[in-house]
Amino acid sequence: MSQQNSPTNSRPQYLEDFFAGQKFSGGSYVMTAESIRAFAAEFDPQPFHLSDEVARSSLFGGLAASGWHTAAVTMRLNVEGGLPLEGGIIGAGAEVAWPRPTRPGDALRVESEVLEVIPSQSRPDRGRVIVLTRTFNQNGEIVQTLKSRLVVYRRPTGN
Amino acid sequence: MSQQNSPTNSRPQYLEDFFAGQKFSGGSYVMTAESIRAFAAEFDPQPFHLSDEVARSSLFGGLAASGWHTAAVTMRLNVEGGLPLEGGIIGAGAEVAWPRPTRPGDALRVESEVLEVIPSQSRPDRGRVIVLTRTFNQNGEIVQTLKSRLVVYRRPTGN
Repeated sequence: MSQQNSPTNSRPQYLEDFFAGQKFSGGSYVMTAESIRAFAAEFDPQPFHLSDEVARSSLFGGLAASGWHTAAVTMRLNVEGGLPLEGGIIGAGAEVAWPRPTRPGDALRVESEVLEVIPSQSRPDRGRVIVLTRTFNQNGEIVQTLKSRLVVYRRPTGN
Repeated sequence: MSQQNSPTNSRPQYLEDFFAGQKFSGGSYVMTAESIRAFAAEFDPQPFHLSDEVARSSLFGGLAASGWHTAAVTMRLNVEGGLPLEGGIIGAGAEVAWPRPTRPGDALRVESEVLEVIPSQSRPDRGRVIVLTRTFNQNGEIVQTLKSRLVVYRRPTGN
């Protein structure tokens, strides 16, 4: 895990600790064929996520992880330190895209950048932080982009 | 599983089989506390997804499933017949939002509607289908909205 461009170099906790352009990175998670098949069997049981032979004649041209598996692993990498938010990573929603498949043996890592910090108009104790997380494979190719809307509290006043 | 407003009442297979307003629904999947904790331990190990006690004093007010768990279960419900696409459900990307948490014991179901059918300008053999999938709990409350961009092939010509 590394954090760049932060004035404090500590884990941001409150809305006031975030700023546009703030960057984080980290993680390494190897996707095995077994884990790809296990996730697919439970959540996305389609042939191209379960069988290398069937996948070869599909759009994917070989066994490919479910996009939701890549998304779940990205969350794990962020929680494990790729996106070190002291108060927790609480997502209200996200835009996700999978420009290329995640393959067996891929070693995934994440890079994130804060795009916007938006204080809530209606709830003075919180705001939203918009973060772009890109998930890379070991060749530096992007397997997922994720633009998340996170709920972050303001620093309590009066104490 | 049910399909409404379809001219054929069969499982759509090619781009030509889709139309805006086409509706699908189906599924029932009960989220247990055990499955919420197991998914979180593997992919989203934050206290409010792991411990009911900790979760009670969090934003969630009690144990809540990871949003990515709700997304993964939604995919399963769609693959199992909620979104009966004969050629498979291949997502290029999606917008997801979680307006309320999924709780232990929630029985989830899905309703989908085709919003747009967009033939590819550059690749004449395929197009995109934009589908809105809403995931409901047993009280009819929406726990997730998902606007997916699916890759769908055109019917082959000449055979």
